[in-house]
Amino acid sequence: MDIAFLGLGSMGLPMARNLLKAGHRLKVWNRSADKARALEAEGATAVGHPKQAVSPGGVAITMLSDDAALEAVALGANGFVPALGKGLHISMSTVSPELNRRLAKSQHAVGGALVAAPVFGRPDAAAAAKLNIPCSGSEAARARALPILATLGQRVQSFGEDPGAANVVKLNGNFLLLAATQAMAETLAVAQAAGLERRDVMDFFTSTTFACPAYLVYGGRLADEDYSAGGFKLSLAAKDLRLFSALAGGHNLPLRGLLEQRFQEAMDSGLGDQDVTALAQTLPRK
Amino acid sequence: MDIAFLGLGSMGLPMARNLLKAGHRLKVWNRSADKARALEAEGATAVGHPKQAVSPGGVAITMLSDDAALEAVALGANGFVPALGKGLHISMSTVSPELNRRLAKSQHAVGGALVAAPVFGRPDAAAAAKLNIPCSGSEAARARALPILATLGQRVQSFGEDPGAANVVKLNGNFLLLAATQAMAETLAVAQAAGLERRDVMDFFTSTTFACPAYLVYGGRLADEDYSAGGFKLSLAAKDLRLFSALAGGHNLPLRGLLEQRFQEAMDSGLGDQDVTALAQTLPRK
Repeated sequence: MDIAFLGLGSMGLPMARNLLKAGHRLKVWNRSADKARALEAEGATAVGHPKQAVSPGGVAITMLSDDAALEAVALGANGFVPALGKGLHISMSTVSPELNRRLAKSQHAVGGALVAAPVFGRPDAAAAAKLNIPCSGSEAARARALPILATLGQRVQSFGEDPGAANVVKLNGNFLLLAATQAMAETLAVAQAAGLERRDVMDFFTSTTFACPAYLVYGGRLADEDYSAGGFKLSLAAKDLRLFSALAGGHNLPLRGLLEQRFQEAMDSGLGDQDVTALAQTLPRK
Repeated sequence: MDIAFLGLGSMGLPMARNLLKAGHRLKVWNRSADKARALEAEGATAVGHPKQAVSPGGVAITMLSDDAALEAVALGANGFVPALGKGLHISMSTVSPELNRRLAKSQHAVGGALVAAPVFGRPDAAAAAKLNIPCSGSEAARARALPILATLGQRVQSFGEDPGAANVVKLNGNFLLLAATQAMAETLAVAQAAGLERRDVMDFFTSTTFACPAYLVYGGRLADEDYSAGGFKLSLAAKDLRLFSALAGGHNLPLRGLLEQRFQEAMDSGLGDQDVTALAQTLPRK
């Protein structure tokens, strides 16, 4: 299949690679062109702007960092939406549900469709094609997207027709993850102060009641105090939390408020480029 | 082996049953005597006060609701510590690390030892002998306790010599659990307000990033809004949180503070006898 892949960041790049490996023909675009050119050695065709990547009636996948980037790529000066026409836009970025609803309308206006399919998993899960993917959009569009999503992930679950729904799920999941990160950071501080080894305590939890990727991956980093970049950037987590808060709207949820404060503090402390687990570094000292 | 089992609540009763099934001879005591008598049909001997259950040099297991109950049973008027003498006290209640350290000293003073071995798991896990058990105490005492603990649980992990250590782990684990409960309650409120089914969202999370008992069990109840009693009583969770806070001491941990407030509110709303997930009912309405 001919696929346009737009956005080759730490997630997009391994995802595009898996599509190439599966035999698809890719036209790729990235804001900084060097990443797109690097993929040419693996069989992709690099193009100069988003519109050049798509063909009428074809498939375009977007994997960008935030609402502004996605909106520019889709509807900006060289935006691909008109050129994609009757085609399918698979929107995989972690963005607001509202933006996906708007882009679905824009694509629909030119005869096409949008499936929202944000992903759970860090870059290593993307490389291993083990992403978990909630998706939503019209039934026909989802049916067309499914084989592509199955190439990228290990589980795809549909959340119905609303093109905003999948991103509601994604933002909720990230909220759970950030809450767990804060909880683990506090727990490990208390355990360490009581004379226990952080690793021993986390290993026990992740072998029993909390034996799941969220605690294994983020708890592992927290246990080892490894806050280096390479996974889920703190600044992106802060962005996701703002989107969750916008979604929650007038709903006064106490933990949401606390996490907003905590992430603001972490950003103000200059931790934005580190891993999200660097949140632990802003805990008040005993 | 002859074992004294003290405390036949919703956790103690199925645990005592598993020891009987494994062929041990049990003398059992409970504050309300009917539960002890009920176990006589299964081969146990019911006694009138804690001291009568133990024999010098033997093994005593305690599974009581809080510090006050355990202290009374161990050191009160008919407390068992002197009568147990050179024996082994396996202290399985969720109590303060400090109390276990004190009881270890008392037992040591008469030639015996204490192993702290609090448990993770709800009554159904206790019945299935699938508890997860952190333990701590002197090496010899742990070696003696191990076969008994292996009869009650699926995983036993040692945390060294300090008889307080295992309860530090237990209180930390419950803190993680209560934080996850609050996070799931907020998430599901937002998802529902956005038009999604609570069950669909939770099923996705518990099949992927959060596929572990904490989220499956507590998330399942929250998804279904089933706050009925029978699992982990909210008033006991509030007690555990107070113990965690005492442990954290001067450490100003923001999520701990928030959960303390939330549980106080839930207790004030008369939810103490419901399941811990009833915490969701005190979320501010949109």
